[in-house]
Amino acid sequence: METNGETLNQLFQALSDPRRLGMVDRLARGPASVKDLAQAGGMGMPSAVKHLKILEAVGLVTSQKAGRVRTFQVRPQALRSIDDWLAGHKRLLEQAFDRLEQLMTEEPEQGPSAP
Amino acid sequence: METNGETLNQLFQALSDPRRLGMVDRLARGPASVKDLAQAGGMGMPSAVKHLKILEAVGLVTSQKAGRVRTFQVRPQALRSIDDWLAGHKRLLEQAFDRLEQLMTEEPEQGPSAP
Repeated sequence: METNGETLNQLFQALSDPRRLGMVDRLARGPASVKDLAQAGGMGMPSAVKHLKILEAVGLVTSQKAGRVRTFQVRPQALRSIDDWLAGHKRLLEQAFDRLEQLMTEEPEQGPSAP
Repeated sequence: METNGETLNQLFQALSDPRRLGMVDRLARGPASVKDLAQAGGMGMPSAVKHLKILEAVGLVTSQKAGRVRTFQVRPQALRSIDDWLAGHKRLLEQAFDRLEQLMTEEPEQGPSAP
């Protein structure tokens, strides 16, 4: 399945940093402020703000300001894009899994057949 | 849900390049040679080899050599890692979707309530 490659690879780019991945994991448990996220990730506020801007730019998180506190939350649509991409591959991958399981149960010690 | 962050962000890093993402999409339809993948992606052989090495290093693809032709295929376990990560967030995200749908059907023009 071909999907919107441009957006997808931007999402993956944003998630390629372990600190940003950690922020998304944290936010999936509920909204949090920059301060919460900085503390949870063991980073300074400027660093947290920088990473949150990257996550927000690709649409992985959204934020709202109430008074002086900006609260972030995961944007479900972004994760759904990744899920849709995986779903397109899953049918084919399930076949691969079935073959693998068959091989593991039926032919524990046989070599591969000639091509 | 916390997962193996190190591996996951490496997978996302590998998928953050549109050419590598295109290769995975192509390989999900079936195994292919370097030549096939280079042609499908509109890139030269050295570039294809470079990107395939990155995909293979993180375990997104595997390869076998038969004679002089090396054939690549997707490694389902890698996509399953991403799927497991999403699954951990999905329960929470489904609740968010439900709330969103409710808002869209019930309150088409109301502003947000005060925190």
